[in-house]
Amino acid sequence: MRHDTVEGSGLYAGASVSSVEYSLLPAEESAARISRLQEAVREEGLDGFLLTQNTDIYYLTGTMQTGYCFIPAEGEAVLYVRRSAERAREEAHIRTEELGAFREFGAKLAAGLATAVPPDRKRLIGTPLDVLPAQTYLKLADLLEPAGAVLADASPVMRQLRMIKSSWEIARITQAAQAAAEALAEALNDLKEGVSELDWMARYEYEIRKRGHIGLMRMRAYNQEVITGMVGAGEAAAVPSYFDGPAGGKGLGSAAPQSVSRRLFRRNEPILLDVGCCIDGYIIDQTRTAVMGELPEELLRAYGVTERIMRQTEKLLQPGIIAEKPYQEALHMAEQEGLADHFMGCGADRVRFLGHGIGLEVDEWPVLAKGFTMPLRAGMVIAVEPKFTFPGAGVVGIENTYVIQEEGPPLALTQSPEQLIVLP
Amino acid sequence: MRHDTVEGSGLYAGASVSSVEYSLLPAEESAARISRLQEAVREEGLDGFLLTQNTDIYYLTGTMQTGYCFIPAEGEAVLYVRRSAERAREEAHIRTEELGAFREFGAKLAAGLATAVPPDRKRLIGTPLDVLPAQTYLKLADLLEPAGAVLADASPVMRQLRMIKSSWEIARITQAAQAAAEALAEALNDLKEGVSELDWMARYEYEIRKRGHIGLMRMRAYNQEVITGMVGAGEAAAVPSYFDGPAGGKGLGSAAPQSVSRRLFRRNEPILLDVGCCIDGYIIDQTRTAVMGELPEELLRAYGVTERIMRQTEKLLQPGIIAEKPYQEALHMAEQEGLADHFMGCGADRVRFLGHGIGLEVDEWPVLAKGFTMPLRAGMVIAVEPKFTFPGAGVVGIENTYVIQEEGPPLALTQSPEQLIVLP
Repeated sequence: MRHDTVEGSGLYAGASVSSVEYSLLPAEESAARISRLQEAVREEGLDGFLLTQNTDIYYLTGTMQTGYCFIPAEGEAVLYVRRSAERAREEAHIRTEELGAFREFGAKLAAGLATAVPPDRKRLIGTPLDVLPAQTYLKLADLLEPAGAVLADASPVMRQLRMIKSSWEIARITQAAQAAAEALAEALNDLKEGVSELDWMARYEYEIRKRGHIGLMRMRAYNQEVITGMVGAGEAAAVPSYFDGPAGGKGLGSAAPQSVSRRLFRRNEPILLDVGCCIDGYIIDQTRTAVMGELPEELLRAYGVTERIMRQTEKLLQPGIIAEKPYQEALHMAEQEGLADHFMGCGADRVRFLGHGIGLEVDEWPVLAKGFTMPLRAGMVIAVEPKFTFPGAGVVGIENTYVIQEEGPPLALTQSPEQLIVLP
Repeated sequence: MRHDTVEGSGLYAGASVSSVEYSLLPAEESAARISRLQEAVREEGLDGFLLTQNTDIYYLTGTMQTGYCFIPAEGEAVLYVRRSAERAREEAHIRTEELGAFREFGAKLAAGLATAVPPDRKRLIGTPLDVLPAQTYLKLADLLEPAGAVLADASPVMRQLRMIKSSWEIARITQAAQAAAEALAEALNDLKEGVSELDWMARYEYEIRKRGHIGLMRMRAYNQEVITGMVGAGEAAAVPSYFDGPAGGKGLGSAAPQSVSRRLFRRNEPILLDVGCCIDGYIIDQTRTAVMGELPEELLRAYGVTERIMRQTEKLLQPGIIAEKPYQEALHMAEQEGLADHFMGCGADRVRFLGHGIGLEVDEWPVLAKGFTMPLRAGMVIAVEPKFTFPGAGVVGIENTYVIQEEGPPLALTQSPEQLIVLP
């Protein structure tokens, strides 16, 4: 059996010292995921499923090597590897084959399709079209046509599958949360008047990287990027942004228009610390608000509202509650406080959600948003981030990541103390 | 006129201290690029061009806010902004409009198409399908059908346009090269026996981040990611990888299967330092090889071959030379030295190129690769990276980034001294 961590074995041999660790996905995780996907494939009336994106392929097989993973409705899943075949063989928990010439890949897929499909209908292959580039989509569609197969957008199937986290996944997110909390505590020693957002972020990122942060955080949506989060002081946090969150940050320039800027920290202004960490591919998202001195009165009051929204949301993060409900309640609370136009951004640039699923990607399902009508379920991991934006003055808020339990209140995975960080 | 850097003006007001700098694309850059694109659009017989990807949109307009940029074959380009419209108005050098309902966007595009198109033929809109997700492609195709317009893959048009760098772009890459060189010099003080690749990389990344590294490097190809490069000691550098380069590195686990591992540095082994930097969106790529003590004889000999390949390549990086030629000559030199099977990776996992274009993305055109038959031109910026891989022992090599000049040898943008770094 494969171990969670290998030390200098197989392909990674040659350095059998205990410091050499390489995290692998346990075989049981892969097997359970494939089984759940095949159930979903049959329920959707699909004949098979094709994975093309690195994160989806890793989720199912345990390797992120490039290629295509085909899962028939019944039978054995196969990973057709472009590169590196050697490494994929070592890491994947399913059979691997070299992809070879793209032209012949169609014939292999046709052979892999369930033979039970009646000849009088097209074979339907689900695949997440939210991430597959159109150029490759058109090539695959051409390839499958002679086999009587067509591609159907099955993005929601994959997103729903990944929505429910196993205890192994929750342990990974907790590990990232621990590293983020330690790094934040260290870096807070350097949060001082006259230090720039950029310099402070460099310090924070150094602390998470040493603890195993993989150096990037993945996002699924087209054109969305996340660095390690954002740090925003005063008005720099409140600059509107393309980033799909309540506060993207000003950034360093129009080619890096989010996260930190060169703005210096000052006294008596909110400093938003929305910084996470990614270990073993799994991401924690958390936000704390800091101030050197005192927050302006209106912002302090708004911060208090984010605390109350968080307490109310915790009551609602239970199996069976509809995902949009916590957002609606939070919006209602903001309205009652006369803060609706500052809630989750400002004016036209507000976002219409309170929280989002998180795991291998920052923007997973479910979203606590209007129109998201699926019921919450145990095992969902959700980052909840009530925030208020005041143009010219700053952003205040909190973000905690929770896992929904079978019964009772959700479990907070975030490890940093929640309260407003008041520095001298 | 817009300045290269603004200090606390307009949208970014409220902090009029000199430390607040935000880099913008000069208006002349945007105008020249639009003009060149429109020429290409007409040459290709297209009626217009649609940009959808953040980097492409930034390249042309000066803003990276989300939405769609439409450039008719003749006439005014428009950016239809999803979010943030306010910020796009501030940054873009072309007219911006709010995107509004997606349904109505089709009508807006139809109106934007040249009226000169005869009614008896389809209007052809070029767009880079190498990056556009299929889900959005299918929606756009539906939207355009009533307007009698179809989307055509025009990825090569965009890649060719971005291939030739202006002096403003070359200054940006040089700035990144300067930061990388300073950071490398600093971090080399900590390259010691018993330090891990991960810890050293954390140190290096801290140094580039403080100097304005934007926190990520962009890659265009599907499923390819780059962190800040890779650092690989001994056999860890030689582990095969999905990464489209000669040495991806072992990584921290199967969910982060490239770049640094937790392997400790030892004496008398090659340590590959393939680390860059991204400032104002523009990337420098460079590689140096270090050793504490002495390289094993075979690896030292191979390192000498990479130096000779570099000198030979410099002679070939001139306007008019076919892009595949430097690769073929380098491969020939490797063959003559009996090192062909170690050149640019090992065995089945070798890559078939010697260098690649670089700019806003790591993987730009041209590629110095077999089959890449376009002639080199002045203004192309190319990272040349001859490397030899010895499984179990390590990787040696060099990478310099050059700009091709109108006449004479190319100009090296890389600032770090090239020679083998020998530490005590």
